[in-house]
Amino acid sequence: MIIVIQCKDQVGLVAAISGVLAKAQLNIVSLREHVDKTANLFFMRIAVEQEAPAEALEQQLLQVLPEGAAVTVNPLPEKKIVVMVTKEYHCLADIITRHHFKTLGAEVQCVVGNHTTLRPYCERFELPFYLVSHEEAQFEARIVEIIDQYQPDYIVLAKFMRILSPAFVAKYAGRIINIHHSFLPAFVGANPYRQAFERGVKLIGATAHFVTNELDEGPIIAQQIIPVNHSHTAAEMMKAGKEIETAVLARALRLVLDDRVFVYKNKTVVFE
Amino acid sequence: MIIVIQCKDQVGLVAAISGVLAKAQLNIVSLREHVDKTANLFFMRIAVEQEAPAEALEQQLLQVLPEGAAVTVNPLPEKKIVVMVTKEYHCLADIITRHHFKTLGAEVQCVVGNHTTLRPYCERFELPFYLVSHEEAQFEARIVEIIDQYQPDYIVLAKFMRILSPAFVAKYAGRIINIHHSFLPAFVGANPYRQAFERGVKLIGATAHFVTNELDEGPIIAQQIIPVNHSHTAAEMMKAGKEIETAVLARALRLVLDDRVFVYKNKTVVFE
Amino acid sequence: MIIVIQCKDQVGLVAAISGVLAKAQLNIVSLREHVDKTANLFFMRIAVEQEAPAEALEQQLLQVLPEGAAVTVNPLPEKKIVVMVTKEYHCLADIITRHHFKTLGAEVQCVVGNHTTLRPYCERFELPFYLVSHEEAQFEARIVEIIDQYQPDYIVLAKFMRILSPAFVAKYAGRIINIHHSFLPAFVGANPYRQAFERGVKLIGATAHFVTNELDEGPIIAQQIIPVNHSHTAAEMMKAGKEIETAVLARALRLVLDDRVFVYKNKTVVFE
Amino acid sequence: MIIVIQCKDQVGLVAAISGVLAKAQLNIVSLREHVDKTANLFFMRIAVEQEAPAEALEQQLLQVLPEGAAVTVNPLPEKKIVVMVTKEYHCLADIITRHHFKTLGAEVQCVVGNHTTLRPYCERFELPFYLVSHEEAQFEARIVEIIDQYQPDYIVLAKFMRILSPAFVAKYAGRIINIHHSFLPAFVGANPYRQAFERGVKLIGATAHFVTNELDEGPIIAQQIIPVNHSHTAAEMMKAGKEIETAVLARALRLVLDDRVFVYKNKTVVFE
Repeated sequence: MIIVIQCKDQVGLVAAISGVLAKAQLNIVSLREHVDKTANLFFMRIAVEQEAPAEALEQQLLQVLPEGAAVTVNPLPEKKIVVMVTKEYHCLADIITRHHFKTLGAEVQCVVGNHTTLRPYCERFELPFYLVSHEEAQFEARIVEIIDQYQPDYIVLAKFMRILSPAFVAKYAGRIINIHHSFLPAFVGANPYRQAFERGVKLIGATAHFVTNELDEGPIIAQQIIPVNHSHTAAEMMKAGKEIETAVLARALRLVLDDRVFVYKNKTVVFE
Repeated sequence: MIIVIQCKDQVGLVAAISGVLAKAQLNIVSLREHVDKTANLFFMRIAVEQEAPAEALEQQLLQVLPEGAAVTVNPLPEKKIVVMVTKEYHCLADIITRHHFKTLGAEVQCVVGNHTTLRPYCERFELPFYLVSHEEAQFEARIVEIIDQYQPDYIVLAKFMRILSPAFVAKYAGRIINIHHSFLPAFVGANPYRQAFERGVKLIGATAHFVTNELDEGPIIAQQIIPVNHSHTAAEMMKAGKEIETAVLARALRLVLDDRVFVYKNKTVVFE
Repeated sequence: MIIVIQCKDQVGLVAAISGVLAKAQLNIVSLREHVDKTANLFFMRIAVEQEAPAEALEQQLLQVLPEGAAVTVNPLPEKKIVVMVTKEYHCLADIITRHHFKTLGAEVQCVVGNHTTLRPYCERFELPFYLVSHEEAQFEARIVEIIDQYQPDYIVLAKFMRILSPAFVAKYAGRIINIHHSFLPAFVGANPYRQAFERGVKLIGATAHFVTNELDEGPIIAQQIIPVNHSHTAAEMMKAGKEIETAVLARALRLVLDDRVFVYKNKTVVFE
Repeated sequence: MIIVIQCKDQVGLVAAISGVLAKAQLNIVSLREHVDKTANLFFMRIAVEQEAPAEALEQQLLQVLPEGAAVTVNPLPEKKIVVMVTKEYHCLADIITRHHFKTLGAEVQCVVGNHTTLRPYCERFELPFYLVSHEEAQFEARIVEIIDQYQPDYIVLAKFMRILSPAFVAKYAGRIINIHHSFLPAFVGANPYRQAFERGVKLIGATAHFVTNELDEGPIIAQQIIPVNHSHTAAEMMKAGKEIETAVLARALRLVLDDRVFVYKNKTVVFE
């Protein structure tokens, strides 16, 4: 059973929280804790050996925590996600493969694409694929309609190459995860591999982050890089980059789905 | 102030420990905890904001912990180390440089060498250098005499190329740190770079570990690798390896000196 | 057009080879060369801008090279492979995904499994799957029959958990690629993650290599590692290891299929 | 003997060059070649087994190369460098240590600092240290005077925290190497660790580059990163970053001093 807590910091929080668990005869298997002194915030993730009624435990914990605390006991073991794509297959295929073999830690409910390219692949796995062309007038409204029919926990932009409106982002605040094909904050915006090639960098990277209304500026979940050199064309950098994009998005999803990521301000706390 | 605890595992330990700290009005800044279920052992490292009388706090903690618990409050901020070397300079120079600029987190008390090669370098920093030739009859006895005169917390084998006797190792059990020039357990023993070259590996590495009486078999603290390829001769692998050896030993020392490493059986718990 | 050459070393080889290409008005786009001085062997990979009749060019090159030289001009752009599996999906799915989206650089002709576990996945991609139980008397004979019907360039053991006989290995010498779930030469043999866990290592790895008749001892193509720590159980190390196994096998296949790997003795030359 | 060539690309260059070497009975041990198709430039680095008169060979090579070719045979085995510093010791100490033990591949002629902090360290190695305060009117003129007295091949900015004027940079064009404490092009300018902390990145890096008159925009020689997380303060990121800065500058120097780096436009070709 996993317990995640985010609240204002104060003296005695660990004692208070672990006291509640000890009284309930729950054995702490692993505990991670972080205090952001500048923000005066306290973050904790606890794994306990036993199961216990979630709601009652949440109430007991809230009673010993400062006002405004967020406590979740035993988050859904299997979250639900909707995946949005354009034409590139690499991130989508990785997610669907893990979903298919039950190692994703989430259920892929459907795929939304603004091109038909990836429809046949989804169909091989009997996954609903919705084509919503960005040329339609009601582009985002249609997507919202589809998403709301599924009520996913997270929306994963697996190389979805359109910018979403502030209204859309606000509606799913803290629930949209994007993979950006550069080592943010380098090469914000379009064509980062072209930019990296022109600049002659010796490393390229990818960044998985939550989406906010600042372009490519949301809280970063995970980043990774690979070395490149003069022999890589921009196209070869892009090809090499896809491997990293796939790996970083997979890692970010694993962390989020495993309740290891806390978001505040423009940052994350990640208990790996 | 740092508190480190190692004891048998049981329900309620976190509550008991953090209760003691809360009562003493000590604010936990960071807390790391690990339970080894197979060994039934509990490990904890806590950083608290305030200072408090160490002995009293240790007593209060021991009262709530299982029998046989090891508790240390506020370990010496600056440990003392003796460094042993043969001819290679890279690890020694890194340690002395950090010592000189006060970023090592320890005081280097003296250097013991079985060759004179590194004496002049030590003298530039007014560091006592003791030559103890391995051809002397009383080789180890002489080293023991030197060490015991300094009472160091740790003995660092910074490319010391002689095997120490079981008696010597037993005398300083858990306090001798070695850098081995391979990615253990690959290439145990002599000439690992030659072995790596012959085998045609694509990565070489280094391992920092506590010394026990099994050759190259003590608890591992840190490991790191670098890529190599067909163009590396054995000599070039050795040269590339020195960079990694220096970096890994530096990292292991930082972790040990910062009270982040616990040893049990043939393993370590490292709270990075 | 790619030209690969392996022969005895002698003075003037580069001049002789590049002279042939210049006379044919072929423009060298990239050239990689290696000489193993101890083995007295010369290796070269050349990419030229233009296309030219392969057989004529091979003849012209052989005329300027020492006896016994191996020259291949323009190796088949799309090699053919047979994949062998047991129960684990991760390497197979990665290969089939790339095959499906035409980014593998090879055609997967069929899959041979000694369990039925992965049959349904193969069927989703209309890929022939042959079940050959290792309990059958004619286990290897049946596999040979299947392979020979396809005449693949390479046989890829994508987590095939049976040891193949010397006769089988000899029959496909230099054409069988295996992924081993450890950082060879550490943890040879069975259950490397269990071994790694027991040893308390801080890095685990995977190795892609050609199969020879020494167990886990063939020429290494690629290796990679990831950090682990005390918090990983053997099962979690295995899970983390699968990511690396997939990545390393993918990289090794890319290198081999792109004619960047030369094999000699127990080693490889890899022009990345 | 090393031969480096940079010239316009055309068909037959490798044949022409290797023909000259073959005629001179020089055996090519290793050869690296790159063509930048967009810039129409050809780069080559050749190691030959034998020694030969440099000037004569250069003349013979120039005769077969396009106009404007740059050919250097057997660049000075030991280059000379001047190091410029402010207060931080880590890069300087690494350079001086390698210099002292004769593994730098260059002679450190003197150190120029705009603070006295590092003078005592230099004096321990009998290295001339020149204090030139940036508050002096003739700040750069004084530095130029010092440098010109030594005629170094390269000027290494080892955490020199002042911006140099366009005139200074122009005077030593292509010969000034800087270590920038971020993964360029992210976090250009002042206080990159503070910027990285505010942004909540999960990796930080360092970049070694030639200095041009665009701030932090010169041709990149080498880059490297290390992972960080929420538990790192800006100060801890800076501390972790120093390790990377030291390693990246050491690597860049090794590459440059070993004649493996070619510069053109805003880029480098690096034959590692």
